[in-house]
Amino acid sequence: MIIVLKSDATQAQIDHIVERITKLGLKPLVSKGVERTIIGVIGPEDILRVTPLEVFPGVENVMPVLTPYKLAARDFKTEGTTIKLGGNLVIGARKVIVMAGPCAIENLDNLYEIAKAVKKAGATVLRGGAFKPRTSPYSFQGLGEEGLKYLSQVGKELGLATVTEVMDTRDIALVERYADILQIGARNMQNFNLLKEVGLTKKPILLKRGLSSTIKDLLMSAEYVLSGGNLNLMLCERGIRTFEDSTRNTLDISAVPVIKQLSHLPVIIDPSHAAGKWNLVSPLAKAGVAAGCDGLIIEVHSHPEEALSDGAQSLLPEKFSELMQELRILAKAVGREL
Amino acid sequence: MIIVLKSDATQAQIDHIVERITKLGLKPLVSKGVERTIIGVIGPEDILRVTPLEVFPGVENVMPVLTPYKLAARDFKTEGTTIKLGGNLVIGARKVIVMAGPCAIENLDNLYEIAKAVKKAGATVLRGGAFKPRTSPYSFQGLGEEGLKYLSQVGKELGLATVTEVMDTRDIALVERYADILQIGARNMQNFNLLKEVGLTKKPILLKRGLSSTIKDLLMSAEYVLSGGNLNLMLCERGIRTFEDSTRNTLDISAVPVIKQLSHLPVIIDPSHAAGKWNLVSPLAKAGVAAGCDGLIIEVHSHPEEALSDGAQSLLPEKFSELMQELRILAKAVGREL
Amino acid sequence: MIIVLKSDATQAQIDHIVERITKLGLKPLVSKGVERTIIGVIGPEDILRVTPLEVFPGVENVMPVLTPYKLAARDFKTEGTTIKLGGNLVIGARKVIVMAGPCAIENLDNLYEIAKAVKKAGATVLRGGAFKPRTSPYSFQGLGEEGLKYLSQVGKELGLATVTEVMDTRDIALVERYADILQIGARNMQNFNLLKEVGLTKKPILLKRGLSSTIKDLLMSAEYVLSGGNLNLMLCERGIRTFEDSTRNTLDISAVPVIKQLSHLPVIIDPSHAAGKWNLVSPLAKAGVAAGCDGLIIEVHSHPEEALSDGAQSLLPEKFSELMQELRILAKAVGREL
Amino acid sequence: MIIVLKSDATQAQIDHIVERITKLGLKPLVSKGVERTIIGVIGPEDILRVTPLEVFPGVENVMPVLTPYKLAARDFKTEGTTIKLGGNLVIGARKVIVMAGPCAIENLDNLYEIAKAVKKAGATVLRGGAFKPRTSPYSFQGLGEEGLKYLSQVGKELGLATVTEVMDTRDIALVERYADILQIGARNMQNFNLLKEVGLTKKPILLKRGLSSTIKDLLMSAEYVLSGGNLNLMLCERGIRTFEDSTRNTLDISAVPVIKQLSHLPVIIDPSHAAGKWNLVSPLAKAGVAAGCDGLIIEVHSHPEEALSDGAQSLLPEKFSELMQELRILAKAVGREL
Repeated sequence: MIIVLKSDATQAQIDHIVERITKLGLKPLVSKGVERTIIGVIGPEDILRVTPLEVFPGVENVMPVLTPYKLAARDFKTEGTTIKLGGNLVIGARKVIVMAGPCAIENLDNLYEIAKAVKKAGATVLRGGAFKPRTSPYSFQGLGEEGLKYLSQVGKELGLATVTEVMDTRDIALVERYADILQIGARNMQNFNLLKEVGLTKKPILLKRGLSSTIKDLLMSAEYVLSGGNLNLMLCERGIRTFEDSTRNTLDISAVPVIKQLSHLPVIIDPSHAAGKWNLVSPLAKAGVAAGCDGLIIEVHSHPEEALSDGAQSLLPEKFSELMQELRILAKAVGREL
Repeated sequence: MIIVLKSDATQAQIDHIVERITKLGLKPLVSKGVERTIIGVIGPEDILRVTPLEVFPGVENVMPVLTPYKLAARDFKTEGTTIKLGGNLVIGARKVIVMAGPCAIENLDNLYEIAKAVKKAGATVLRGGAFKPRTSPYSFQGLGEEGLKYLSQVGKELGLATVTEVMDTRDIALVERYADILQIGARNMQNFNLLKEVGLTKKPILLKRGLSSTIKDLLMSAEYVLSGGNLNLMLCERGIRTFEDSTRNTLDISAVPVIKQLSHLPVIIDPSHAAGKWNLVSPLAKAGVAAGCDGLIIEVHSHPEEALSDGAQSLLPEKFSELMQELRILAKAVGREL
Repeated sequence: MIIVLKSDATQAQIDHIVERITKLGLKPLVSKGVERTIIGVIGPEDILRVTPLEVFPGVENVMPVLTPYKLAARDFKTEGTTIKLGGNLVIGARKVIVMAGPCAIENLDNLYEIAKAVKKAGATVLRGGAFKPRTSPYSFQGLGEEGLKYLSQVGKELGLATVTEVMDTRDIALVERYADILQIGARNMQNFNLLKEVGLTKKPILLKRGLSSTIKDLLMSAEYVLSGGNLNLMLCERGIRTFEDSTRNTLDISAVPVIKQLSHLPVIIDPSHAAGKWNLVSPLAKAGVAAGCDGLIIEVHSHPEEALSDGAQSLLPEKFSELMQELRILAKAVGREL
Repeated sequence: MIIVLKSDATQAQIDHIVERITKLGLKPLVSKGVERTIIGVIGPEDILRVTPLEVFPGVENVMPVLTPYKLAARDFKTEGTTIKLGGNLVIGARKVIVMAGPCAIENLDNLYEIAKAVKKAGATVLRGGAFKPRTSPYSFQGLGEEGLKYLSQVGKELGLATVTEVMDTRDIALVERYADILQIGARNMQNFNLLKEVGLTKKPILLKRGLSSTIKDLLMSAEYVLSGGNLNLMLCERGIRTFEDSTRNTLDISAVPVIKQLSHLPVIIDPSHAAGKWNLVSPLAKAGVAAGCDGLIIEVHSHPEEALSDGAQSLLPEKFSELMQELRILAKAVGREL
């Protein structure tokens, strides 16, 4: 922690700060420059983080030196985390994992039809929402447990792992029973109770970045899950909120290499939610793979015109299949496979 | 709903859309312009909202005409909503209500000390967090039920109404038992289950705007509470996330008049969380009152240097008292009182 | 300047950095913490600012301690700057200055009509654009010198000071001849040649904040003007670009107290451009005065339906007159006058 | 243009609007819905765009149907624009063009050294700034004409085309004399006089997107250049300003496919300025090519530690060479070449 003092800070103010830091068991180092005095603090920064040094008289600015996350940090674990699903499926290894399926699970037949198509095209994880976070109380809210059953049944029958969102602490046990990967949605990225409790499960977690969350915020939320004991965590970039309105959100493609530098956790790209338009999904998926992501999660619907949710951003199965072929070539060109 | 077609849309595509709209029980009006054909749709827009018209071949753009919220709209209720608390306290009337207190409830003595000070200065609602949404799992997470007890006890003794945050659906009944106003925090503004369930209580709700939520999003979340039957709802602007980093968030002062135009719900300003710095609280509080807000929620702490949460943005009781005197004069100047 | 090293920085890397800093005539202070080594640098930071320390092997992060602006800083000049215009008009003193008039100067009669109305209502500076920065090449681009003549003529006849935008270095001498205050528009806030050259004039400058400029950026642009020798500079907050789309831009009301803390320069609020809608101008103008601004710049048009530019955000003269009466009372309530 | 009326709009108000539209030579179509009356306007929308319909009594909202840009639109020209430089160099064709070089031209030897390296690695255009837009007046401002001479000399000697920024209308003729491509920087994207006047030259123009400009804004600025008669225009995405602070700006990778859909102009990606850190340049460059860009512009410096500008984001020649090899394979995988 570096404490920058005001140009007119008095000696008494400096002494007061030094005394307080010493009392906390840390070691202050005062350096007087021409224009400013600076106090460096040596010792565990966490103790200081909860002390509001900014309000001490004479303080202008406080600059943390260490990252506030620990378990999520690359410093903590140099090698990339790999997450094993059933079969030979590993997330975070050479193979880029593709998760695909409808936004919402609507009925068994439709899910089965879509699942068969995405499996054929090469997807290995089936996505589908049973609990849907909808902006409007008047929109379709998902089938709930019935949807989970369909997902599990279709996944088993076709040999696909499954991923679905859990929105409520009360539903964790239920979702855990049916799905292989538990998704925490963007709107719940800072629902800290939910994070804590999925951190107590054994299931792999897919944590989506919030619309206005920095990468640091995302890693802090990751810390909630990891500190609960669940290390099977992957992070998902799905677009952030900006002033640009030609896409629903702005896919922050830099998040891929930045997270890879700061953390050991696998990174998934969601081009469907970022773009909000099916005809942008393909270029964004390719950009994700080229930038080094470990997986993609893509919305596919066999009848987008009839979809109960997010039809506008769903790929038709044949478009998805084309994309998979293109991605296969692309993945090889960047030293991965699909 | 207005559907703008592509310049090369075919007659078959137009017919397909018209047929679909008619089947939904709505009336399409096709106008062919020089450069574009446009289809206006007459009838309840909600039916169309769930139909992904953007994916129909030939469609370029779909523009909704009506607001997606209904109960929250000024059109639905022309007069401003007033919320009655105990005593003569009314939120949404001539008097600007001031809620003040510590960020987190730390212990009984400290809460009592702060509460006495804010009451003396003229606050009528005591704020204080028992469940704290903290970015880091290693930060103080609040006293839980013990904190609620202190809040209730101090509030009753001093004749102050109380407001505190509820973060989890499982805690609603508990918080309802102790507090007069239930706060939904910014990070939970789109925790839809939480919104639905506080909508089933009878207690007034203070709903904070999310960091990256548009005013329309906020009104959609309000709709969740209102459609549950709870009409005692007030909205709170507490800063949005922007690129500017000299303040923690950017107080969107325009939200006050914009919400007043679009909705009948009272608007509260939270200058403490918006600024993140105590020395900005006073000018922002004044700006809020001048812009027409119905209330303020302000963090006050008697020992900010020792505060367990948000010390940097807490006013000392004497600063708060000064501010209250200034606000009293200001409120009169804009036709309100404090 | 504080240089934070990587956790695996070698002694050779540290030595390399220390050597370089010493060669630049500065004094490095190395402190080895448990997790990180930090190098503090004592001496003029400007020398280091141009040295890309981030690329030195072993460096994780570089944190400047001092502000990069000097002449604009409150540290440089403790008292607020006051700018004297003709008559008794002073910007930056107790009186809040109101500048009003049409967006664009359209013709002499119309300008005269509006000017008479704003003068009667209490404005002391007449605004009006002769060179208009328009997003579309097909929009009205302003009357040029003819417009400047009208502005000067009407200003003189009615005893109003005048402010108008200069967009091009080649027009500075021309605009200087006719107007009392030269405005640099938001889109030119980082047109550095323009800044340098208006810094060489003697005329007061009104510098508008860019749509995506931080307050620090604004102060750096101010530095360009001040370092040219022109100290008659005022800054103008006119809304920044955010994701919120119910207003044209988001008025960053916190900019008023933040600039007042960081700098000695007067601050003007432009509620018209920030909101983009006439019916938000009044609450935003009031918020500006309550937050402590030194002046307002407001668009007024006698026939907004016919305005060639920005009609939607222009106040009718009678609305402007009402607002002025309300502001007069408000200004007194915050210790100012109008 | 679609005009949505307020729910309480009167017949007199409707008549007033209809009359005005008719007077402008356009055809109004009134449709009365259950909740709202809507007026569609048939005819050239440009006439209406300058009429502030929002201020007409009874109007709630005005929605344009057509894009405000014409010459830049894909509708205007279905095939992608190709720009021919000397030799066989074509921008906008199958080959992805790589422009590389130092941020600022510092001296002849250094430029020559870097230019040789980037040419060897496969770049075909040499970049280098002679006029530098610097946030601080105290930073190196570029060598001016001397720099242009070096750029031209080195370009000719090595057979590289050249690109450099022009910041001032007064320098256009000068820069035109020395460089093959004129760059308009992000900070000047809405310097409309500059746009108009480079639109009158014959040289290819590289127009960078402003930090807070939407894609629509960028296309409107393109319209300024095109309407001057210069059709040799390419657009450049270089990152937009968002709340994320782990990168200098946020590369909006979606801009590539979005611009390709809306416009016929070639798209260049600048990963160096977007990231602000050399170790993010490679993944972002790859993402750009995968998303379908027509070119890259990359900063390379042989001694980044000594660079006078932007050293932190410059690649070393050997890193650039590695990247070029990887891009060559990647380009093929997406049907392009390098």
